[in-house]
Amino acid sequence: MSNYDQLISHYQTINHFNHAQSMLGWDAAANMPTGGSDARSQAMAELSVHVHRLSTQPQLGEWFNNAENELLNAEQTPLITEKKASLREMKRQWQQATLVPEDLVQAQSIAGSKCEHAWRSQRQENDWTGFEKNWKDVVALSREEAAIRGEALGLTAYDAMLDKFEPGTTTASLDTLFSDVKTWLPELIEKALAKQQSESIIMPSGTYPTAAQKSLGLEIMKLLKFDFDHGRLDQSVHPFCGGVPSDVRITTRYDESDFVQALMGIVHETGHARYEQGLPKAFAGLPVGEARSMGIHESQSLFFEMQIGRSKDFITHLSRLSADAFNAYKDPVFTEENLYKLYTRVDKGFIRVDADELTYPAHVIMRYEIERDLINGVIEHTDVPEIWDEKMKASLGITTKGNYKNGCMQDIHWTDGSFGYFPSYTLGAMYAAQYKATMTNTVNIEAAIQSGDLSPIFQWLNDNIWSQASLHTTDELVKRVTGEVLNAEHFRKHLEARYL
Amino acid sequence: MSNYDQLISHYQTINHFNHAQSMLGWDAAANMPTGGSDARSQAMAELSVHVHRLSTQPQLGEWFNNAENELLNAEQTPLITEKKASLREMKRQWQQATLVPEDLVQAQSIAGSKCEHAWRSQRQENDWTGFEKNWKDVVALSREEAAIRGEALGLTAYDAMLDKFEPGTTTASLDTLFSDVKTWLPELIEKALAKQQSESIIMPSGTYPTAAQKSLGLEIMKLLKFDFDHGRLDQSVHPFCGGVPSDVRITTRYDESDFVQALMGIVHETGHARYEQGLPKAFAGLPVGEARSMGIHESQSLFFEMQIGRSKDFITHLSRLSADAFNAYKDPVFTEENLYKLYTRVDKGFIRVDADELTYPAHVIMRYEIERDLINGVIEHTDVPEIWDEKMKASLGITTKGNYKNGCMQDIHWTDGSFGYFPSYTLGAMYAAQYKATMTNTVNIEAAIQSGDLSPIFQWLNDNIWSQASLHTTDELVKRVTGEVLNAEHFRKHLEARYL
Repeated sequence: MSNYDQLISHYQTINHFNHAQSMLGWDAAANMPTGGSDARSQAMAELSVHVHRLSTQPQLGEWFNNAENELLNAEQTPLITEKKASLREMKRQWQQATLVPEDLVQAQSIAGSKCEHAWRSQRQENDWTGFEKNWKDVVALSREEAAIRGEALGLTAYDAMLDKFEPGTTTASLDTLFSDVKTWLPELIEKALAKQQSESIIMPSGTYPTAAQKSLGLEIMKLLKFDFDHGRLDQSVHPFCGGVPSDVRITTRYDESDFVQALMGIVHETGHARYEQGLPKAFAGLPVGEARSMGIHESQSLFFEMQIGRSKDFITHLSRLSADAFNAYKDPVFTEENLYKLYTRVDKGFIRVDADELTYPAHVIMRYEIERDLINGVIEHTDVPEIWDEKMKASLGITTKGNYKNGCMQDIHWTDGSFGYFPSYTLGAMYAAQYKATMTNTVNIEAAIQSGDLSPIFQWLNDNIWSQASLHTTDELVKRVTGEVLNAEHFRKHLEARYL
Repeated sequence: MSNYDQLISHYQTINHFNHAQSMLGWDAAANMPTGGSDARSQAMAELSVHVHRLSTQPQLGEWFNNAENELLNAEQTPLITEKKASLREMKRQWQQATLVPEDLVQAQSIAGSKCEHAWRSQRQENDWTGFEKNWKDVVALSREEAAIRGEALGLTAYDAMLDKFEPGTTTASLDTLFSDVKTWLPELIEKALAKQQSESIIMPSGTYPTAAQKSLGLEIMKLLKFDFDHGRLDQSVHPFCGGVPSDVRITTRYDESDFVQALMGIVHETGHARYEQGLPKAFAGLPVGEARSMGIHESQSLFFEMQIGRSKDFITHLSRLSADAFNAYKDPVFTEENLYKLYTRVDKGFIRVDADELTYPAHVIMRYEIERDLINGVIEHTDVPEIWDEKMKASLGITTKGNYKNGCMQDIHWTDGSFGYFPSYTLGAMYAAQYKATMTNTVNIEAAIQSGDLSPIFQWLNDNIWSQASLHTTDELVKRVTGEVLNAEHFRKHLEARYL
């Protein structure tokens, strides 16, 4: 067996343990009673240790060297391009796993768990002082990690952290993209708010039973051609898309006093799910067969949510289906017009996860700027609350002075050291808008949505994104699909068309 | 670290992978869409291989030798008895895993899968000839396994197979027990049938919605003090009790035209579940902390089903709760008297899984006699249909000549070589009756059931069975609890009291 084939076999083995890990994680969120938590944590920790051991086996370095030579010598054999991509992605995962010394990983895991666990109550109590004491270590260890990764990869500290979630994305490109957005976003928000002021909107005020919301969600998933032979819908406190490509598990949470969030949450998670379900079978279980990046994943969920879900044409379907589900044909909440207003309402708020499409980028960009400077050592962790307040005032005109719980303590990401993740959200929204702009050239999107058969849209996404998995780097992928690298212009045009 | 402690740590590691395996198995039965099956099978096979590798690591032999000496030298230290039991049970699992050579295990797995898979359609088609061709190999390989196990353990061939499911149980003891049963069972069945002839019974004929059946099931589980912080109820095609002791997953299936089977099925699985939930936390994750044997497990499910569930006092609760659940207060199906008749009806039928409490042992005993003689080489696999027919005629007076699908091809057990398992069912029923006889000395069982607070019964089971896990051998356990080894007399008395 060639070393290349040995690597393929080894990464398929790793994948089987990841399958178990993924399903146990889904089960813990969707099914597990509280008393099952200790044993489950132990089992999942054991699987993590085992996967880490497999991912860092000493012979892998030699196999990678040999496999690269094997493929060089096999130029112009069938599938050589795919094999090279496969090797590149295996090597990338191997490097990610081996770059950071074991004792640092462990120290981070301990500090991160401690900080995150304490944060759950500290946030409620607005206790910055308590939080800061734990967070200090998390930041210090993340800087250490960033330095090691940066050194090995020839990247700046923060770029090395970005690389974990968005391989190839750099501070330079993000600075360009986000400073573009900052030139037009605040004015656009003001204009949208002004326009909105003259509109009347009817807020949901009824009771919307969980069973009816779930049936409605399933109907919407059918419309979005979720493959129920390869996945299911369940409930969890924090909605997510989990499972494995052949069995994708999405979750939502239901609020019986309001259907708005759960419903669009299902549309969003269905976007993630269809990407997973559409990954190529030929590379199942291999790194090259996985989703390209967090940003590309988010581009699919946000394509479903923002480009399809909140469009007027799709909301026509939502209006009909939700009136059916709640037996509320005469309820003015469910008219097309009112639902569209509900789903495009703009509001300057403190909380990112509650933010609308238009203000969301402002939340992300300020987080990006803060974590970039924090990891690069430009600012200290104790500076964060003040900088947060300044940036909130500058971007959304609201102050979080002394209001830590709704300020810099609101998100889980930083508590366990997930620096470099936030940009993915807005990158995803931008990719989605750019894909849409290109798709328009060959697909009559509005007609497809109106007809209720959205296949042409999904076929395009499948051909261009889903089936391509990680065969190309992110920049290559976007250039292949749209003819250019990421360009904030498409995002601006999309938002202007919807909100002006 | 002592070798004893190394073993403890090693078996806890194995347990974490078993946790994953168990949950993936439950999920496959309760949740998984059909398209998830291939990837799941691969992941579960990988976990099996890994557990087998861990269970047969070369250094274990030395560790066991050294650990035995360590404990000998540690006589009269605290918990020495428990430690010795713990070592005994780890060693037992190690022996079970290492006794049979890898290539035989693999050959059995292939032959068993092939035979079982083909059986699923062959049974439908009554195709003995086709089945026999595959089964031949399964039997031959099982005989080979039995010879190897027997040689190593100093047991006869069939006793070595029994030892996998019922450590310590022998053909000698089963022959004694079952020949006792055969002296009185046929006459008892005839008398019960005669008595029943003069009774009228109202069969369920309504529609019993799944949601209502599930609510009723959950009510019954509460009455039986199932711990919902450590488990849950779901649906699957074949009801079972799975999961892990801290998170026990029981399942049932609902038939909307009949509630009888699902309801008592839940009582049965709750018995299994409470045993698991009651296993001692101090030995969690270790072989000594696991359930004693298949027969003892079945003794708990059958204690719940037969000693509690089908008692007149419990049926009073069932009558009330089911009338509530189906809003059927005036429906004569749900009177105490009628429900009791439904749950104690005797019927001589072909199918073991549909058999009532009284005829069930006849089904088991004939299977025991056949598989004993088959594994010991006294009969050949081609003799089975004829012997089956003779034994059915002798025990239940019905013939299966030419009717293979409802004869010797009806059960899954033999198709993949699970010889030695069948006796557990009737051993369980006998243990349950014997426990009940002893419990009566200190617990007012009828009063407890009548009051609706069954705690005294569960406290007794917890103190005597659940908390003892595998600290004692089966015979020791039964003697400690009841003062004698298994004695069919208690079973006979129980059946006479109920059916005469």
